[in-house]
Amino acid sequence: VNRNDPDPVVNTIVIVGVGLIGGSLGRAIKARGICREVIGVDTVPSPPTGPHPAVAAGAVDRCLIPDQLAGSVAAADLIVLATPVGTFPDLADAIAPHLGPATVVTDTGSTKEIVVARLTARLGGRFVGGHPIAGKEHSGVAGADPDMFDGATLILTPTEQTDADARERVTALWRRVGAQVIPMAPALHDQVFACVSHLPHLAAFALMQTVAGARTGDLEPAAFAAGGLRDFTRVAASNPAMWRDICLTNRDALGKILDAYMADLGTLREAISQGDGNALERAFEAARQVRARMHP
Amino acid sequence: VNRNDPDPVVNTIVIVGVGLIGGSLGRAIKARGICREVIGVDTVPSPPTGPHPAVAAGAVDRCLIPDQLAGSVAAADLIVLATPVGTFPDLADAIAPHLGPATVVTDTGSTKEIVVARLTARLGGRFVGGHPIAGKEHSGVAGADPDMFDGATLILTPTEQTDADARERVTALWRRVGAQVIPMAPALHDQVFACVSHLPHLAAFALMQTVAGARTGDLEPAAFAAGGLRDFTRVAASNPAMWRDICLTNRDALGKILDAYMADLGTLREAISQGDGNALERAFEAARQVRARMHP
Repeated sequence: VNRNDPDPVVNTIVIVGVGLIGGSLGRAIKARGICREVIGVDTVPSPPTGPHPAVAAGAVDRCLIPDQLAGSVAAADLIVLATPVGTFPDLADAIAPHLGPATVVTDTGSTKEIVVARLTARLGGRFVGGHPIAGKEHSGVAGADPDMFDGATLILTPTEQTDADARERVTALWRRVGAQVIPMAPALHDQVFACVSHLPHLAAFALMQTVAGARTGDLEPAAFAAGGLRDFTRVAASNPAMWRDICLTNRDALGKILDAYMADLGTLREAISQGDGNALERAFEAARQVRARMHP
Repeated sequence: VNRNDPDPVVNTIVIVGVGLIGGSLGRAIKARGICREVIGVDTVPSPPTGPHPAVAAGAVDRCLIPDQLAGSVAAADLIVLATPVGTFPDLADAIAPHLGPATVVTDTGSTKEIVVARLTARLGGRFVGGHPIAGKEHSGVAGADPDMFDGATLILTPTEQTDADARERVTALWRRVGAQVIPMAPALHDQVFACVSHLPHLAAFALMQTVAGARTGDLEPAAFAAGGLRDFTRVAASNPAMWRDICLTNRDALGKILDAYMADLGTLREAISQGDGNALERAFEAARQVRARMHP
């Protein structure tokens, strides 16, 4: 630990995957002087001349290629996995033999139950799961924001197996970049985010497909897209690989809420078929009230 | 016609329903000096003292109660129906016996095939349907905007029965307030807007219901609503009676596109159940490309 730092969390942090979230965390750490060195590991190659984009963006001090991952982690105090969650098992297998005795590992994945089980099996109590509730429409380090987590929520998902020191160090990191840390059981996390994030994204993805497939003579319906459709299109711009992995690692909770959504749509469909205006108006009024509770 | 006006569309316009759209049209007409007098008819009562809210908002010169509707239309050159479309048949029955020989009637309803058929049956060729593609989250004259239609699209839905003069006069009105007038067959209009507006609204209404009904222990999932859900909630704030009427007057096209949407959701559901990552990624990539075409 650098003794010149009045409240150092760690000496060296390795961020694996310097995209929007990893890059924002790197910038936030560097802007606040939280550690001595931030090392990135990313599949994006360095240009022939000039710095790596993640270095140019101020997200990391230097950026390594994936082949250098194992060598980079030996001296790391804290490793943050910020790639799509489907890559985590292989990453954990790659780093596990090289970790120092006190190295802590965390992640920024959007699903937690399967992720925490897989990574705890490979890394033991040094792993503690995390999910920063932040993001933007477009992925990539170019959009990284050093204040992205300032005032944001960080869901921490420790289990009985998690080391107290690992939990404390990861909590300290996120607090230092401005986040409010809320502990939650991994399974409950996945139920909540199936509801407020994963389902809305799937609903938007499906809507884009339906609109694209609609037959309206020679007209392209999207040319007449008003506010209604445009509101749904923002999330449909999200990273397909990331959302594939979210679906594959939250199958149970997401499947249940998707079934409920299709049932609610089916009820509206039936009311339309029946011409049941009272049922429709009641449903729309109820939806409006839910919305008003969310945005008081 | 007021000879002092270099390009008068009409002398007297009656706007029935001085809410967000009717109020914005009134303000736009008055701001541009398009006619001598704008008369509103609205169910909102006048306060004991002071002007009617629609007058105070600058939307109309005076505002009558519904009982005064029949008396107000005799001298009108143009009548604009801007209430929920379910009210149109009764309104048409009320005004039909009192219309002058040259009075033109139009509307601002979001569905057209049934509306045009019903109003043409009652009013004949003097009726021409219209749908301004504009709006905001919140209803009511307080949000009326005199520039709402500036640069907006106005879908005009004349039929073979529509008088040429009626079509010309309504076209002139909307052009004068800044709109681009696009003619479209009523049935095609309803297919296009089932797709780009009605389906997205129903998807958002249903999503609010699903989120409200989700069981996640003692947690209120909406407390963790991130961008994904928030994007959907804006349209769920819309006027329930207006959306009831839209559903009831666009049952066929809306039913078909809702079926397609539920089928697309069902395909995603099946891919999640099967753990078919390739199918999921392909679907999300396709959705992203549709979105990119819409927002180049």
